[in-house]
Amino acid sequence: MLLQTLNLVGIAVFAASGALVGVNKRLDIFGICVVGATTGIGGGILRDLLLGIHPPTSLDRWPSITVAVATSIVVSFAHPALSKVWNAVILFDAFGMGLFATGGASIALDHGSSALGAVLVGATTALGGGVLRDMLVNEVPLLLHRDLYAVPALLGAAVTVVGDALDVPAGAAVIAGTILATGLRLLALWRSWHLPRAIGQN
Amino acid sequence: MLLQTLNLVGIAVFAASGALVGVNKRLDIFGICVVGATTGIGGGILRDLLLGIHPPTSLDRWPSITVAVATSIVVSFAHPALSKVWNAVILFDAFGMGLFATGGASIALDHGSSALGAVLVGATTALGGGVLRDMLVNEVPLLLHRDLYAVPALLGAAVTVVGDALDVPAGAAVIAGTILATGLRLLALWRSWHLPRAIGQN
Amino acid sequence: MLLQTLNLVGIAVFAASGALVGVNKRLDIFGICVVGATTGIGGGILRDLLLGIHPPTSLDRWPSITVAVATSIVVSFAHPALSKVWNAVILFDAFGMGLFATGGASIALDHGSSALGAVLVGATTALGGGVLRDMLVNEVPLLLHRDLYAVPALLGAAVTVVGDALDVPAGAAVIAGTILATGLRLLALWRSWHLPRAIGQN
Repeated sequence: MLLQTLNLVGIAVFAASGALVGVNKRLDIFGICVVGATTGIGGGILRDLLLGIHPPTSLDRWPSITVAVATSIVVSFAHPALSKVWNAVILFDAFGMGLFATGGASIALDHGSSALGAVLVGATTALGGGVLRDMLVNEVPLLLHRDLYAVPALLGAAVTVVGDALDVPAGAAVIAGTILATGLRLLALWRSWHLPRAIGQN
Repeated sequence: MLLQTLNLVGIAVFAASGALVGVNKRLDIFGICVVGATTGIGGGILRDLLLGIHPPTSLDRWPSITVAVATSIVVSFAHPALSKVWNAVILFDAFGMGLFATGGASIALDHGSSALGAVLVGATTALGGGVLRDMLVNEVPLLLHRDLYAVPALLGAAVTVVGDALDVPAGAAVIAGTILATGLRLLALWRSWHLPRAIGQN
Repeated sequence: MLLQTLNLVGIAVFAASGALVGVNKRLDIFGICVVGATTGIGGGILRDLLLGIHPPTSLDRWPSITVAVATSIVVSFAHPALSKVWNAVILFDAFGMGLFATGGASIALDHGSSALGAVLVGATTALGGGVLRDMLVNEVPLLLHRDLYAVPALLGAAVTVVGDALDVPAGAAVIAGTILATGLRLLALWRSWHLPRAIGQN
């Protein structure tokens, strides 16, 4: 129950980031909702496609998409005020990323993925929405730029998988992985960490 | 039989719109056929991926892709004349959209989707081909711009789902939904209706 | 065993092409690995999604992704030297394309595809990684431009399917299809063959 609530928080924050991009691209309300919903539930849809869950849960049950669309509509009206709470949005976004990574890995294990498969499906759940958002509005995905976002997602998913292999209770492994991923992401933002480019570039 | 014929008409019209984009992007014949076929059958492929129909019907049986590729080849040769029949193309496109939305929703119900899932899968069937077309040629999807296209698709799919819930014969619900979606789309075009942008923009 | 090794060679070459694009786009090491891995295993993932193999083999077992990521890392460091071996890369790329097309078609037949479905799934396996690469970095897919790349993939997959229908041993049909696709691609490169554009364009 707590996990499901947190999952909806993650969807709302991701949807808000997508809706803001839609506002900046001057889309109409419907376009804003499409980009917002894609960002909020896109990672979960990719996860379900990879795992063979048909139709994807986020399309088939009402809470996820309702939260994503409602958030997008709110953002359409409230976007001038959002710049004032931007730090809160970044905090929630880091938290949503961690939660999606560990939750996705946990669901993948339940559906018979290998350890490697669960890590990669978890990371896809966390990162897929943002990549779809950027492809939809015709930008090179932010994920591919200099910013430590994907590594925390992979590590959070890995913690979940290792916990499962060590017979740690699933809840504990998910919480530990989420804290690690969220914390590492915030630390990277705070300290402006980033990964190096290819040799000979800077 | 009639429905299948109408479905192929929808594929042909969508393929023609994709092939025309390919011509305008100065692609070679093969590229035109790829964009045309993607636009014509892409929505159906996404539908089948979401519903777990493997391999997707449009790839596995010959009529859909044959119609899509043949249309694309015809457009490669006949595109200078197409501007004269552009109004007919728009009419058929609206009709294809309505048909794909209701047909997709109907197939989704047959595969055990919830009512919400069927509406969203139906809309994805109607809109997916055009979104894939625009992503392929590196444009922001037209769907996201100011133009009432997606709302009729959602409404048409919803009529089908409501009809199913009320035990209306499937054929009647599909026909009613298609007429509503097509009519609303044409009305929006004729009256230049569009949705508002985010607050503070116009 | 030989086929699996050759498959990994194909993945490595495709990953190298993706990683080079990432270097040219000035992505960080992680972004280079993402584009490289997407290019190397993306075609196989699309194949498995179309055939209903969950989770996709390339995500669930370690060799494919390990080879793709390791190749991407090597390219990050060695890219200045790669221009000297560019002809070798093109040779391997043509070979990887042929191998993916025939291997994909063969796997599709094993999973119950029709002959047409197997040809299209085979071509998707061969071409999907490159299309995903180009969409990810926001370019119009090279496949859509004037260059004879997709036709050899379709023909190679078709040879595999025809061989299967004639009860030729699967290995022989795959080898024949791979040689045809690779050879035709290299011939097209060597002779600068390309397909015509739409009528009235050149």
